Formats: sequence, structure tokens, C-alpha cells
Amino acid sequence: MDRMYSNQLRPKQQAKVKGWVDHVRDLGNIRFLTIRDREGLIQVTAKKTDVPSEVFKMISDLGKEDCVEIEGNVLKSKIAKKGFEIIPSSVKVLAGAEKPLPLDFSGKIESGKDTRFDYRYLDMRNPEVKNIFITRHKVMGLSHEYFRKEGFIEVHTPVIQAAGAEGGSTLFKFNFYGKEAFLRQSPQLYKQMMMASGLDKVYEIGQAFRAEKFHTRRHISEFMSLDFEIAWVDSEEDVMKVLEKLVVYVLKGLKKDGYDLKIPELPLKRFRYDDVLKILGKAGIKIEWGEDLEDRQEKKFAEIMEKKGYELYFITKYPSKIKPFYIMLDGEVSRGIDLDYRGMELASGGQREHRVDVLVKVMKEKGLDPKDFKFYVDAFRFGCPPMGGIGFGVDRFVQQILGLKDVREAILFPRTPDQLIP
Amino acid sequence: MDRMYSNQLRPKQQAKVKGWVDHVRDLGNIRFLTIRDREGLIQVTAKKTDVPSEVFKMISDLGKEDCVEIEGNVLKSKIAKKGFEIIPSSVKVLAGAEKPLPLDFSGKIESGKDTRFDYRYLDMRNPEVKNIFITRHKVMGLSHEYFRKEGFIEVHTPVIQAAGAEGGSTLFKFNFYGKEAFLRQSPQLYKQMMMASGLDKVYEIGQAFRAEKFHTRRHISEFMSLDFEIAWVDSEEDVMKVLEKLVVYVLKGLKKDGYDLKIPELPLKRFRYDDVLKILGKAGIKIEWGEDLEDRQEKKFAEIMEKKGYELYFITKYPSKIKPFYIMLDGEVSRGIDLDYRGMELASGGQREHRVDVLVKVMKEKGLDPKDFKFYVDAFRFGCPPMGGIGFGVDRFVQQILGLKDVREAILFPRTPDQLIP
Repeated sequence: MDRMYSNQLRPKQQAKVKGWVDHVRDLGNIRFLTIRDREGLIQVTAKKTDVPSEVFKMISDLGKEDCVEIEGNVLKSKIAKKGFEIIPSSVKVLAGAEKPLPLDFSGKIESGKDTRFDYRYLDMRNPEVKNIFITRHKVMGLSHEYFRKEGFIEVHTPVIQAAGAEGGSTLFKFNFYGKEAFLRQSPQLYKQMMMASGLDKVYEIGQAFRAEKFHTRRHISEFMSLDFEIAWVDSEEDVMKVLEKLVVYVLKGLKKDGYDLKIPELPLKRFRYDDVLKILGKAGIKIEWGEDLEDRQEKKFAEIMEKKGYELYFITKYPSKIKPFYIMLDGEVSRGIDLDYRGMELASGGQREHRVDVLVKVMKEKGLDPKDFKFYVDAFRFGCPPMGGIGFGVDRFVQQILGLKDVREAILFPRTPDQLIP
Repeated sequence: MDRMYSNQLRPKQQAKVKGWVDHVRDLGNIRFLTIRDREGLIQVTAKKTDVPSEVFKMISDLGKEDCVEIEGNVLKSKIAKKGFEIIPSSVKVLAGAEKPLPLDFSGKIESGKDTRFDYRYLDMRNPEVKNIFITRHKVMGLSHEYFRKEGFIEVHTPVIQAAGAEGGSTLFKFNFYGKEAFLRQSPQLYKQMMMASGLDKVYEIGQAFRAEKFHTRRHISEFMSLDFEIAWVDSEEDVMKVLEKLVVYVLKGLKKDGYDLKIPELPLKRFRYDDVLKILGKAGIKIEWGEDLEDRQEKKFAEIMEKKGYELYFITKYPSKIKPFYIMLDGEVSRGIDLDYRGMELASGGQREHRVDVLVKVMKEKGLDPKDFKFYVDAFRFGCPPMGGIGFGVDRFVQQILGLKDVREAILFPRTPDQLIP
């Protein structure tokens, strides 16, 4: 007989279920057992007079979190929460659980984050925590679906790189057969090179790494980056159109699935950097033109926007001097854009500089030696169309969708300066 | 006007196209231009009498691989290969191409692999090379589709790890905020830990790393690993059922898309290790019982199988001593399995050892200190169901589907002891 999940059971059938012992209650001649599987809980009811004596005895010996396989008859029940229960004909212990558990995952006792991350597999037995990772799974699925429907090609560019796109201070360095190599900070340079190949529209979802010694609710050393790049753009507006459609596609998909989410109308609001400074200025927050926005300033702006009904918006036309070398500049102002969601920067990108002479000039101005990036710069020499794209933080998106306080909550095994194991 | 791809053009319309100059032919009063975009070629025909004089002049000045944007009228044509041509009303150069190109990608002159990988974006302008990465994209899409349809949850486990699943010699080591860390050889230990969480059926697609100083057609330092793990298995047979359905799902999807592939019937043939030794023995190849199969022996076995009509088959019941500590052993014989496709090992896995006392004993016998893997071993203590799964090489699968000689052909920017840039 094939095993069934708790949500597949119907009264008046023989069934086999497998799961963890959630709890056992002994009322003398009747023993109640609750089994937990991926989809929910199942009540098992054993009356001394109705079940084989070895089954009756075995149920008393079961302990919390033992793994069991149970066969029996599914019957209607007035007391069972789901309206039915299993009358067991056989109970097998597949694996016992040591006592005590190092973590209470019932939600009744608050556990420290460190303990929770140390025993993530126990932490996830709490349905709310499990739901974070089911949500993440859905966000990934909807993202793949969107890009593929829109004619994007999925690519895999290397994690092991010889140069960093974002500069040296946040690189993890290692020895690659005698040569100096780095973990990618971003697939930036590689996805851009694909635009010179003719693939036109590419996306990549994969880990990226930053050696940042920050201890904040939004910094992590290993994060999931969703990147896309499109060729033949006229301006950063083309990039924003792809990005806003992606975000709304994912949010709509989740909403359809029962999530309580506000779906914004398209196009999303676009605020120029200058507008943001003005709006914040009116709220008493002064920012010097040319300074990047700090976390708390973004938060304040989000509060003002929330009152106006905006959760998702772009910030455009950032000052050139705070943007990386690969963003196209129009004098003092850049074609770089950010996407903010509830005060969190989700994505950053814009139109790229594809004119090789300008690119080399800007790299030098920013203190980079174009020779170190020859493999990349060369890609702009032999017919490279105008392009644009973004890098999007999947972990942060999941965090904001679910309203989690800390981005580490959205990651199975987060990596921070303090956390390498497990 | 929105830009159209070459395969979207129809006669009797105004159109805008963007692409690379494939070639220009000057016949005096008529100039033929061929533009290449992601989907194919487009003929542009300019008669001196029919087009604006600046457009006519500009076409002569265009060079191979310049990026252009062309607007014009699409007309029926008897000479054009596709049956129509564009009569240009405007030609814009979006980016020029330096001459000469460092690589001839027409396929007329054979280029060395090193040059091809150095200029991958030019290499990919050859439609056959581009098709490798379109195929890879399709393989990825079909794999995601299969797992999601089958109720698997996609997970992301860490690339940065404190211990290696496959032993020390092939680990890339680096400094993680003062601690020793490694690039993952496999998500093995983490996907197994998920089975103790209740997620039940998980999959992950991501990069894995091996510091192997081999120079063969199948070894690479960074590869794309597709992993799955399922809980509550009875034996390795449950794992094979998921895997063979995955492979056939992908092959069928490609065949529907026009690929010339043989679709095997399910279940796939299962050969016990003992059978393989007997069959190879009859062909004059003697292998000592307990030895692993070498590449050339697997090839020989594949040749014999090909004659019998089998391209895809499992090898089961390997000797225990050649399997890693996490595979369940029944005395001398293990529950490990391999999947071979045209003589190439695609996947390796089996049922895992979930009994913590046995696991610890086997780890010690294999020379490992369970204390170094405490975070992993602990996952088996608190109710961990029987489980099984595999690691599957996506690059190799693409290689074999397309009959590529070298696995590096299936990877955009391959990483080997000799190749770190680009």
C-alpha cells in the first residue's frame, strides 16, 4: 500500500501514513495518538477492545518525535478535529527520538536564534517556520515561470572568479591551483558578457557572497541573488518594466495561493533621487546631494510612502558618483535604479555603459585598472548592444513578503561572521 | 515601435529589428545586408532608387558584427531565404565592432578550445554553440517542472561549509572571518538534514566544487549539481523510481521540442554490480570484486549495452567498501546506485544510513571523526526517517544529450586547473 499524506486521507478507506509522534494521551482503555507529517496532523485512536493488543501496547511506549508508520482504517469521528481518525491495525517504529530535545519548537517557549539555527531541522517542525521555506520555494517557482514565459534564457555563470565586480574589500579569497581566486559577489560581469553573445535576455538565480563584517538585520555573507540582463535597451526604463512585472507576477501568484498581500498597479511609482531628498527634507531629514541613502533614511521614506499607500517603488536618477563603474552616467546623474519594498532595498541595477571608450575612462576614474578586467572589457569591443539589468535579493524579498524581522529567518542555514556551522 | 525578432516578422508590415551585421554585399546600385539576432537571420535589401540616400550610404559603411537597429517595410521576396526582406527606411549604429575579431566563429576555421572559452561571447554567435546553452536552459526548466509537479520543495543549502561530505583532498579551503571554511563538494549533508525537518521531498540545483587536478573530458572544478532527497523510503528502489522518471521527463520534453532522442521505457534496466562484472568478464575484462569501475570499463559496458539497445541503466548493489559513509550497507553489499547514460555516470546515490548508532560506527570505520560532523549526526538523533536521494551532474547530462566530446563544452565559463579566466 502506498503511503498517504494527512491531507489525502478520506473516511472509509484503508490507509498507510508516516510521520512524527506529535503527542500521545493515555486514558486507560483508550489511547489517542497524534501523528504529524508534512501536510498536517492525523488523529489515531486505539480502543483496547478494537485494536490488536500489541498495537495497543506499542502506542503507550511511543515518545514524542519518534518516526512511525501506521496502517489502519479511516473512520468518521465527531471529536477528531478533521472529522476523522485512524483505527490502527499496525504500528511500526521507523526511528526513535532521543530525549530531551535540544529545542522546543512548539512556539510555547521562545528559543534563541542561535539554538534555532543550530537545530534548524527541529525548528522547522514548527509549521510557521516550515511555511517560510514553502513560501521561498513558491517565490522561486514563480520567478522561474515569469522569466521563461517572457523568453529569458537561464544561465549559470561561475562562482569562482578572478576579479570582483563590487571591489576588493568584501571578497572571500582562496587558492585555486596556485592562483588567487574569489567567490563571486555577483554574476554582474558575466551576465553582461552574455549580452555580447546574442542570448539577448538572460537570468540567473544563484548564491553570491560578501565578506561584510556587519551585524544587521539585512546583511549576510551568502545570499541568493536573482539576476537578469537584457540587451538592446533604450534606457533604464526598459529594465524597470521587466522588474516590476516580475515582482507583481510573484506577488499575484502568492495571493492566488491565499497570501494576504497588496498587489500594486503597474507602472510602479518612480521617484527621482532629487524627489526623495525633497520629501525627506520636508520631514526634517536633511541629506547632502550626492550622499547615498542610509538604511534608516530609506525606512523613513517608506513610512511616508506607506501613508500614501505605496509599498513598492523605484528610486531613479541617483548621483553618478555613488554608482559602480558599469552603470551608464549622464553627467552628474546616473541611469541606476533601486527597487524598494516596505523600506527594504530589494533590487539594484539600471542601464549599463556599453561604449568601450567611456567604460574604460570611468573605470580609471573610479580607481580600477581596466587591465584587471580585460576579459570583461573586451566583450564591449566586438559589437556589444546597449543593455541593462538588475541584481535582486531573494532572501530579502521573502523576508518582506512574510514580514520577518531578520533576513536570516528566510535562509535555511544563514552565514554571518558568527555563523559557519551548521 | 517595439523591436521584433527575426522569427516574428511577416510580410506587409512596418518593423524594427536589432542585431549584428552578419554580412554586407555591395552590387553597385543595390546593397544586401544580413542581420543576425537571437532567433536567426534577416535579409535587408537597399536599392539606391528605393531608400533614403543616407541609408544607402550608411549600409556600405557597416562592418561585420556592428550592432544595428533597422526600421523598414517587410516585403515578399523570391530571392530571400525566408521569403521576405526588409526595405530599410532608417539604419542606426548602436555599437561598432573592432576589427579583426579575435575568433572566427563561422565554423569554417577550427579555433582552439582555449580561444573559444576566452571569447565565449563570440563563440556563442555560432548557432550550434548557442544551441548548447538553449538546450541547457531547457533541461533546467524541465527539471524544475518535474520536481514541482511531483510535490518536491526547492531548497538552498549553503555553499560555504565547515566540513566536506566527500573527504578532504578535493576541498577548496578559505578564510571565513578567521575560521577555516570550504566550498561545498555537494549539498549531501544538508539535504539529508532536511529529511529530519519534515519537508519530506526536497531538491536543489546549484554549483558544487571539487579541487581535482585531473585533465579529463569529464572532470571540472565547478559543476552544476542537481540533488534530491526523499524521506520514508523502503529501499534504494524508491530513489531509482524518482530518478528514472526525472530523466525520462526531461528527454521526452526535449523530444517534443524536436530533439532526436531515444526515450527508454520505464523501469530502466537495473544491473547489479555482480552482473556488470560477469558481463565485462565475458568480454575479456577482469575486475576484482570490490574494485570500483573505471571510466574505460564503464565505456566498454556501455558499448555492450548499446548493442542490446540500452542507453540508460542503473548499476546497483555496489560493494560497501567503495561507498561513502552515508550510504546504507547490508554487510558486504551497499544500497548505493549509479545511473549511467551512454557510458557516462550521470548520478550517484542510494538509500542513506539513518540509524545513528550504525552511522557513527561506519564513520569511524571509514576514518572520520563523528565529532567533526556533529551538526549532521545530531540530525539523526531526534526522529529521523529512512531516506534516500542522489546527486546528478547537469553538465554531463547536457553533454551526453548533445553528444559533446568534452563536458567543458556544456559550461559557459568552465573552471579547470588551467582555466580561471574569464
